[in-house]
Amino acid sequence: MTSRQIASQDEDYARWYNDIVQKADLADYSPVRGSMIIKPYGYELWENIQGGLDRRFKATGHKNAYFPLFIPMSFIEKESKHIEGFAPELAVVTHGGGKELEEPLVVRPTSETVIGHAFSKWIHSYRDLPLLINQWANVVRWEMRTRLFLRTMEFLWQEGHTAHATEEDAIEETMRMLDVYVDFAINEAAIPVIKTRKSESERFAGAIETYSIEAMMGNKWALQSGTSHYLGQNFAKAFDIMYTDESNERQYCYTTSWGVSTRMVGAIVMAHGDDRGLRLPPRLAPIQVVVVPIYRDEEQHDLVMNAVLDICDPLITVGMRVHIDDREGLTPGFKFNDWEMRGVPVRMEVGPRDVENNSVMLVRRDQEGKAAKQSASRDNLIQTVSRLLNDIHREMLAQATAFRNGNIRLVDTYDALKEAVTDSWALAYHCGQPACDATVKEDTKASSRGFPLDKNETWSPDGEKCVVCGKQALGMAYFSRAY
Amino acid sequence: MTSRQIASQDEDYARWYNDIVQKADLADYSPVRGSMIIKPYGYELWENIQGGLDRRFKATGHKNAYFPLFIPMSFIEKESKHIEGFAPELAVVTHGGGKELEEPLVVRPTSETVIGHAFSKWIHSYRDLPLLINQWANVVRWEMRTRLFLRTMEFLWQEGHTAHATEEDAIEETMRMLDVYVDFAINEAAIPVIKTRKSESERFAGAIETYSIEAMMGNKWALQSGTSHYLGQNFAKAFDIMYTDESNERQYCYTTSWGVSTRMVGAIVMAHGDDRGLRLPPRLAPIQVVVVPIYRDEEQHDLVMNAVLDICDPLITVGMRVHIDDREGLTPGFKFNDWEMRGVPVRMEVGPRDVENNSVMLVRRDQEGKAAKQSASRDNLIQTVSRLLNDIHREMLAQATAFRNGNIRLVDTYDALKEAVTDSWALAYHCGQPACDATVKEDTKASSRGFPLDKNETWSPDGEKCVVCGKQALGMAYFSRAY
Repeated sequence: MTSRQIASQDEDYARWYNDIVQKADLADYSPVRGSMIIKPYGYELWENIQGGLDRRFKATGHKNAYFPLFIPMSFIEKESKHIEGFAPELAVVTHGGGKELEEPLVVRPTSETVIGHAFSKWIHSYRDLPLLINQWANVVRWEMRTRLFLRTMEFLWQEGHTAHATEEDAIEETMRMLDVYVDFAINEAAIPVIKTRKSESERFAGAIETYSIEAMMGNKWALQSGTSHYLGQNFAKAFDIMYTDESNERQYCYTTSWGVSTRMVGAIVMAHGDDRGLRLPPRLAPIQVVVVPIYRDEEQHDLVMNAVLDICDPLITVGMRVHIDDREGLTPGFKFNDWEMRGVPVRMEVGPRDVENNSVMLVRRDQEGKAAKQSASRDNLIQTVSRLLNDIHREMLAQATAFRNGNIRLVDTYDALKEAVTDSWALAYHCGQPACDATVKEDTKASSRGFPLDKNETWSPDGEKCVVCGKQALGMAYFSRAY
Repeated sequence: MTSRQIASQDEDYARWYNDIVQKADLADYSPVRGSMIIKPYGYELWENIQGGLDRRFKATGHKNAYFPLFIPMSFIEKESKHIEGFAPELAVVTHGGGKELEEPLVVRPTSETVIGHAFSKWIHSYRDLPLLINQWANVVRWEMRTRLFLRTMEFLWQEGHTAHATEEDAIEETMRMLDVYVDFAINEAAIPVIKTRKSESERFAGAIETYSIEAMMGNKWALQSGTSHYLGQNFAKAFDIMYTDESNERQYCYTTSWGVSTRMVGAIVMAHGDDRGLRLPPRLAPIQVVVVPIYRDEEQHDLVMNAVLDICDPLITVGMRVHIDDREGLTPGFKFNDWEMRGVPVRMEVGPRDVENNSVMLVRRDQEGKAAKQSASRDNLIQTVSRLLNDIHREMLAQATAFRNGNIRLVDTYDALKEAVTDSWALAYHCGQPACDATVKEDTKASSRGFPLDKNETWSPDGEKCVVCGKQALGMAYFSRAY
C-alpha cells in the first residue's frame, strides 16, 4: 500500500484500477446499479478525447447530428442478428406520462436502426451519397458485472453511421475510420493499438465484418478500445435505405458504423498507470503542467507567487493547460504525491532559490528519481515545456510499445497457447470458427481478439492449421484475457 | 407562398416555423412520437450555442461532469413539490436485461435529485464550497403537444447545479448565471431577452424562486429561453447535502440550478426569421459566409474558382466559417434563395468582373434590396468581412430590440390587459397569486411571464393594485401568449 491507500498493481490489479479511478476523482459509483458518475477531472479527460476525435471526424467529412434516445421495439427487431445480439441487454420504457405505452420503447443500446430509418428518408439518389454522420450520445446496455468506465450500464460514446453507393466505398470508409482511431490512440493517447479483424463470434450483431483497435493493459489483458463495422446491406435491407443510381435504378446502400466510448478513459488508466497513480498522456491531460510554489514564510510566499504568475501567464496564453496549486496548509510533499496520483505530466516547482536564479524545476511524471528532474531557465520556457510535453508523449508511447511487444508470444500448439495466455497475448493460427473461440474461452478464460491486419497482410496462411481444432487456418489471431 | 414553399409569417406563423425548421434542415420529425432528429445544420448551430455557453460557465468557475440517465423513483419522490410537478411527465423503465425491475427507474426529467445525492457524498466541510457543476445531457419529459425544438419529449440541454454555504452566496450564484444567460443571448444570439422573476405558478417544482430570460418571438409570443432557480435548502434537506462550518457545526447547504436547452434554437429561428427564411446571428451561424461563384463557361469557371480559393483561404485561416457553394447544375439565383432560406449572414458573390476588379460582392442577409449589397476590395477583406459580421450582429439586435419595445403595452385595467395580449405583451401591476395567473390564462390564453427585474428595481409598487383581482400588487409583471 502506498501512502494514498492505492493497492499496488502486483498485489491486486483490479483493486489498483478501482482505487485509482476513485482516488484520482475520475469517477464515482452511483446509486443506480451499473451506472457511474463521471467526475469533473474524468469528464475533462473525456472532453479532450472528444475534441481529438471530433476534429478527425470533421476533417474526414463527417457531420454531427442527434437522433432519439428511445427506439420503438419493432425497429430493433427488424434486423434478425441485431435483435438476437441485443435482446438480453435492453432497458425498456413501458410507461410514459402516467400511462402504459402501446408499444414499448427501447433505450438505445446503439442507433443503427433509428438512424437507418432516417437515412431511408434522407437518401434519394446517388448524389446524396456518401452520407457521413456522427452522433455523440449516451447509450444503455444492461450489464450484470460492471466496472467503472470499462463496462457500465450507461456509457457515453460517439457512433458514426454512414451510407455508400458501393461495397467498395463502404469498406474503404470502414478502414478509414479504423485508421482514424489508430491515429487518435497513438498520437493523442500514446497507446500503441493493434488493428484486428474480429472472428465471427466477436462480431457486432448485424455486421458483415467488425474491425477493432486492441490495446494491451498493464496486467497484459486486452481492451477493445474502438470498433469499425462493415454492415454490408443488412441494415439497408431491413430499413429500406435505397438510392436511385445513375441509370435510374433503385439500389440498396452499403452502410458502416463505428464507435469509441468512455472505455477509452479506462484504456488510458490501465495502459499507462503505475503504483504511484495515473500517468496521463500530455495531449489529453486536463492539466498538463501543475505548478507547486515552495515557500517558508509570508515574504517568500509573496516573492514566489508573483514569480509563478509571471511564469504561467505566457504558458496559458499559448494554450497550455496549467494549474497553480496554491492550496494553503498542505506541504509541497503532499502536493507532489497528490498530482503524481492524478497523473499530471509535468510538475513545475518554484521556490525562492529558483526565483533568484531565474529558473524553475521541471519534474516529468513518466520517469522516476533523478532522471525525472531538470532545472530550466525561465527564458524560452514555452519552448522548453512544449518540447518536454512532446518528449513525454513519445516516451510513454515507447514504453507502452516495448511492453506490448515484450508480452506477445507466438505459439504453434494449443498447449503453448494455454500456457501463453496466463501472462501474455498469444499469437496463433486460427480457423476463426465460433466453436474454437468457445473452447479457448472455456479452457483459459482468454478470448479471440481477432486477426491482426499487419500480420495477415504480409503473412498469408498457406495450409497452416488452427492450433485449436487442426482445421484450415484463416490466419494468425491474438488470444488473451480481456475486459 | 414563396418559391421554396414556405408559408409566410402573416399567413400562418406556426406553419412558417415548421416549414423553416424542416426546409432549412435544422430538424426532422422522428418515428418516436414527440422526439425529433436534429439534423447536421441544426446540430452545428447547437454546437455553437454550447460553445458560447460552456466558455462562460468555465470562466465563472464551473466544471462539467456527468450523472446517470436513470434515477430511482424513490429519489424523485423525496422532494414533495418536485414529484408533484414532474409526476405527470415521467418516462419509466420497468424492465432491464429481460427482467422486471424491483424499483422502476425514471428517465431523468432534470437531475436535482441524483446530483443532490452525489453532492451529499462529495461535500464534507465549508472548504468544499461552493461546489459548481454543470452537465450537458439529454432529458425526457412526456409531452402531449410537441413542436420541433420548442417542446419535445426528449431534448438536449445543460443543467448547472451548485451548492453554497449561505443563502446569500446561493442567491448571488442564481443571479450570476441569469446574467450569464443574458450576456450569451445578447452577445451571441442577438436576442434582447428580459430578466424576470417568475410568479408562484410558473416556478420550477421545488424552487424558492425561479428567474427566467424571456424573449419576444416574431409573432409577439414570449419564449422562456433559460431559467435560473434558487432552491434554498429544499433539495439539501431532501438529500442531506450538508457541510461542517468553521465552528464545526453541521449545516445544510443552499443550492441552485439553471438550464438552457435546444429551445434556444427555436428562439433564434423565431426572434430573427423572416418570410425568406432563417436569419442566423453571425456569432452562432454554422456558416458565416457562403461564397457563390458566378460563371458562364468552363474558362470563367476556372478563373473564378481559382480566385475564390485564394479569397477564402485567409478568411478560413483566421477562423471564419466559410462555405464555398460549388454545386454544379444549379443557377446562382437558386443558390441565393437557398442560402437566404438557411439564414447565412453574408453571401459573397464572385464573378469574372469581380476577379478583374480585384473585388467581391458582399450581400447581407439582415437587410433587403440595394441596402444589402456592397462591392468590397479584396485588399483588407478579413477586416471588411469581420466588421460586416459585427455590423450584422448589432443590426439584428437593434431590430429585435425595436420590435420588442414596440410591442409592449403598459396597461392599468384588466380589460386593457385582455385587449393588449391579443397582439403584444402587456405590462401590468400583479399580485403574483396563482389564482390570478389562472384567470388570465383562462380568459386570454396569455400567461404570466414574471416580474421584470429592471422595472421592479426602480419602480417599487406602493399601494398599487393587481389589475386582475384588485388586491395589493407585488410589482409590474408581463403577460403574453407564450410557447
